Amino acid sequence: MTTRAEILIIGNEILSGKVADEHAAFLCRELRLLGVDVRRVVVIPDEVDTIAESVRAAWGRADLIITTGGVGPTHDDVTIEGLAKGLGRPLVRHPVLAQLVRDVYGASDDPYVNRLADVPEGATLIAAEGLRVPVLAVEKVYVFPGVPEVFRRKFHAIKARFQNPPFFLRTIYLGVREESVAGLLYDASAKHPDVALGSYPVGNRGAYRVRLTLESKDRMRLETAFAFVMDRLPSGSVVSVDREPDPTG
Amino acid sequence: MTTRAEILIIGNEILSGKVADEHAAFLCRELRLLGVDVRRVVVIPDEVDTIAESVRAAWGRADLIITTGGVGPTHDDVTIEGLAKGLGRPLVRHPVLAQLVRDVYGASDDPYVNRLADVPEGATLIAAEGLRVPVLAVEKVYVFPGVPEVFRRKFHAIKARFQNPPFFLRTIYLGVREESVAGLLYDASAKHPDVALGSYPVGNRGAYRVRLTLESKDRMRLETAFAFVMDRLPSGSVVSVDREPDPTG
Repeated sequence: MTTRAEILIIGNEILSGKVADEHAAFLCRELRLLGVDVRRVVVIPDEVDTIAESVRAAWGRADLIITTGGVGPTHDDVTIEGLAKGLGRPLVRHPVLAQLVRDVYGASDDPYVNRLADVPEGATLIAAEGLRVPVLAVEKVYVFPGVPEVFRRKFHAIKARFQNPPFFLRTIYLGVREESVAGLLYDASAKHPDVALGSYPVGNRGAYRVRLTLESKDRMRLETAFAFVMDRLPSGSVVSVDREPDPTG
Repeated sequence: MTTRAEILIIGNEILSGKVADEHAAFLCRELRLLGVDVRRVVVIPDEVDTIAESVRAAWGRADLIITTGGVGPTHDDVTIEGLAKGLGRPLVRHPVLAQLVRDVYGASDDPYVNRLADVPEGATLIAAEGLRVPVLAVEKVYVFPGVPEVFRRKFHAIKARFQNPPFFLRTIYLGVREESVAGLLYDASAKHPDVALGSYPVGNRGAYRVRLTLESKDRMRLETAFAFVMDRLPSGSVVSVDREPDPTG
């Protein structure tokens, strides 16, 4: 079974146009390379109830949920609280995180620093080489910070655990309009339901006008569908074909 | 009342990491400049039922819904069908679009071309200068294509209708860690609930360590909250202050 993932990007600064999110594109690319099927990305504000509701909704659909943003000491860092509420778990102070907080800040009764050690009950910490602070997970939910370089370092440190069998990809570049192959694509997608077939027009200014993609985890089925399409494309319509199996190539 | 918007980005190619979406960032920025409050962005695959469910969910929360992608003649263009299903409306052939299709393709019985004129019952067409094809709307849902230059041209052509009173923004750049102002920010956000207060750490490599943003549609309240924060910041912590009202500045 392929892991179905959902991504929750948490942050007012993205919705208000102050920061262009890069985490979603990064995660879609990385998770695809890991053979994971990303089913949905949701960008929501720093609000406990909205986070709780979004986590609950994703929980019912996905095998893997990745959140970014909203972890930190300030009033607008409410991801942990929203997650706890969404999963119906109390917040508890995690002894390992509490020790890390003491290591960094010294013994303190500052509530804004100490809440950095609060987690939903039952949370686990995933340690990995190169990480000073482990990644927090609550069953299938993985919680990442929003600061890009920290987020990426943490993701790369633990991504091996998300590995699935890979996707294989074929790309066909066409010099004709999408309309002239629409019927063929309907036929191909009906005949080969296990192969995902995409059609992307790019206007008429480049070396090609339409990019067709065929994808599957089953290489034989992919090749069969690829042959089916190639055999039926209008004569002279193919500009080039990409044989690389790399889905982000 | 401020318009609450949700954005639906529709396309397998985004979730599978082949294309990095730029529409969400563009729309968040543009809508903010128009004074619109973007509440959520959702990226979903080209699937009728997922689109239908997402439209229904957004309909219950938002005053304005903008979709991008999934309009066109091929099998994976199912936004219109999903929208119709989500709103419980039948698909009907729109006479103006049918004429446009005939103008472009000539009289044809090609079903893949003719379905470009199908819309949910009750849909309206918004004509604007410079648009050959009008923008399709179904009440508060506006449907845009995924091809970037076409999408942007269409959005700019009709965006004036989304205009709200503007947001005003103040930015404070701090040379100290976020932890040292967390308590103050809690106090400020409790005292000034009408002013959105954001705190964004940027690591310790630049000219500042934390960017604070204060935003409101009420300029007086913004200035009051700004003064409240400035008065209480630790001595010497302010690197600079940005006075521009432009929320994307």
